[in-house]
Amino acid sequence: MAYFNIQYETMKNFSLAVFEKMGFTADESKIITDVLLTSDMYGIESHGVQRMVLYYKSIKNGRIHMDSKWEVVHETPLSAVIDNHFGMGQLVGYYAMNKAIEKAKNSGFGFVTVRNSNHYGIAGFYAKMASNEGLIGMSTTNSEAIMVPTFGKMAMLGSNPIAFAMPAEPYDFFFDASTTVVTRGKVEVYNKKGEPLPEGWTINAEGKPSTDAADILTNINQKKGGGILPLGGSEEMTGSHKGYGYGMIAEIFASILSLGLTSNHTHIGSKSGTCHSFIAINPNLFGDPEAIKAHFSTFLEELRNSPKADGKERIYTHGEKEVEAYEKRLKEGIPVNDKTLGEMKAICEEYNIDMESYLGKIDF
Amino acid sequence: MAYFNIQYETMKNFSLAVFEKMGFTADESKIITDVLLTSDMYGIESHGVQRMVLYYKSIKNGRIHMDSKWEVVHETPLSAVIDNHFGMGQLVGYYAMNKAIEKAKNSGFGFVTVRNSNHYGIAGFYAKMASNEGLIGMSTTNSEAIMVPTFGKMAMLGSNPIAFAMPAEPYDFFFDASTTVVTRGKVEVYNKKGEPLPEGWTINAEGKPSTDAADILTNINQKKGGGILPLGGSEEMTGSHKGYGYGMIAEIFASILSLGLTSNHTHIGSKSGTCHSFIAINPNLFGDPEAIKAHFSTFLEELRNSPKADGKERIYTHGEKEVEAYEKRLKEGIPVNDKTLGEMKAICEEYNIDMESYLGKIDF
Repeated sequence: MAYFNIQYETMKNFSLAVFEKMGFTADESKIITDVLLTSDMYGIESHGVQRMVLYYKSIKNGRIHMDSKWEVVHETPLSAVIDNHFGMGQLVGYYAMNKAIEKAKNSGFGFVTVRNSNHYGIAGFYAKMASNEGLIGMSTTNSEAIMVPTFGKMAMLGSNPIAFAMPAEPYDFFFDASTTVVTRGKVEVYNKKGEPLPEGWTINAEGKPSTDAADILTNINQKKGGGILPLGGSEEMTGSHKGYGYGMIAEIFASILSLGLTSNHTHIGSKSGTCHSFIAINPNLFGDPEAIKAHFSTFLEELRNSPKADGKERIYTHGEKEVEAYEKRLKEGIPVNDKTLGEMKAICEEYNIDMESYLGKIDF
Repeated sequence: MAYFNIQYETMKNFSLAVFEKMGFTADESKIITDVLLTSDMYGIESHGVQRMVLYYKSIKNGRIHMDSKWEVVHETPLSAVIDNHFGMGQLVGYYAMNKAIEKAKNSGFGFVTVRNSNHYGIAGFYAKMASNEGLIGMSTTNSEAIMVPTFGKMAMLGSNPIAFAMPAEPYDFFFDASTTVVTRGKVEVYNKKGEPLPEGWTINAEGKPSTDAADILTNINQKKGGGILPLGGSEEMTGSHKGYGYGMIAEIFASILSLGLTSNHTHIGSKSGTCHSFIAINPNLFGDPEAIKAHFSTFLEELRNSPKADGKERIYTHGEKEVEAYEKRLKEGIPVNDKTLGEMKAICEEYNIDMESYLGKIDF
């Protein structure tokens, strides 16, 4: 796979043009583009601008309802439940997290859940919205079922990430990870390369360990059984029940507390129905936010400065890699692979967008 | 190691007598006994009545201050920060969770943090206090540093469990797990048996994989380096940074939001200084609690009924094993090993307690 670096501003303007052509307003296109490009800038290619293709298909096949408008079906000073009526995930996500942030600023705490939604990008984007405002932010989502529960062989939970962000110096703490041992995106990368998966990631339709990426992905898509293991693997000895437990917490916050579809009931027929959660906690609930931030920053520094394992040069605290990836990409551009460029070109042809006028001439 | 089964009521009366002799009031002894015996009844022997010996030593060496009284240093309708002034962990834990529960009943949400405390038993006990009241309960604690961060070789975080409980039928969802791949208690069990540890649990003072339980425990006690790996092991390939991330969330809630000692600063000299967090969320923030409970119970049933992996008879939902262990022990008694009985006997001799009059004649 060949990669081409595209400057941030260049990619942003192109993305805005495409999403407007898809039928989103300029403001909506800005939110969607911001979520996708933040992911690319953080080095999380799987959830970046390449998702444009997925959204294009989802609009075409009616999975994303362009004409629907979300509805706040329950609300208190601390909470809300929103029905997204199968609209775009990023738009309701941005709205819901802002609502949680407003509640946390006014009341100390905000917890908003969303049902009947679609893919919303990286969970971390929403958690970071809160930490940008001096709050602790959390977000979880469910997804198409890909995680087999401990001792099971049918995927019943999604990748079910838990994202957590909190103000700190010199940069915010930022944690965003699926509760599976790896994401489906990682399995797709091995499939594209035609390489066997590492041991301990997946099981096949018979419930046996497998390293066959193509088979695993087909089984997930066709709901034939098998899938990705929870963080901690397949046995209690290595903590499988723990990853499964964290996946449950993400699921409870997203789909149970919104009375929405659990992962095993999403993505059936032409509907998605993904559910999300958005939490903001004001650190002033616990005293002086600046004192808390300073205390936290000291601990993070102690972690980074603690002795390294043999052969390891650094201990990272969560969010460091993203900050470094951001700085690197701001200078060097965002790497986009030829397959994605080809898919984008096809979309542009349909919409009569002159891709070259945005991205320049790329010989892919 | 030989085990002897002791009936629940018998053990309860014995424990009450011992803690009263240690200097706790009848009410305090009841709380401490309830936390310890709940752990035994759930089948978590490491955090059960055998901890009586640890508490006895901690009172003797001044780690637990018998004459201190906790102090609420910050409070809002949704939150509180409590300084336990190095008092007993269970007592402040019970008080703090009840405060969180009261806030969640009145305001929808309660989040109480505690600093300068001691070992408080299983985190799950406090989470369950909330689910017993129809609320979602969470509790986290830090502890003596035992977890090495990803790519590190010095223990910097504690076992840092996250416990989560929520009302469901036919029994509550109950999740309580360390964010390390295993607890120190498990390593101690291998040490007592003289067996090598499974691969992937621990690293030694040089930061190299190790299966030598005795060496690991000595290193942790003497802060010489090495320790237990995060859930997900030592490499990012198996999700090490995820377990480390969940450990961070437990740490943030407990020690950062209380302005208390982080794990790496606890248990230095004669003080402990462990920190805890207690969260209660009222499901009525999201609509009808009964509808949410029914929705959740359906999903749990679907999980249990989903296809099993080869060679596995059951898929457990979290809390099932504890309910079954409880029922079994109510009939058959709590298994206590001879080493613990010997240690209890020594305590009884010092306090002039006639152990036989409580437990009957046990030939251990």
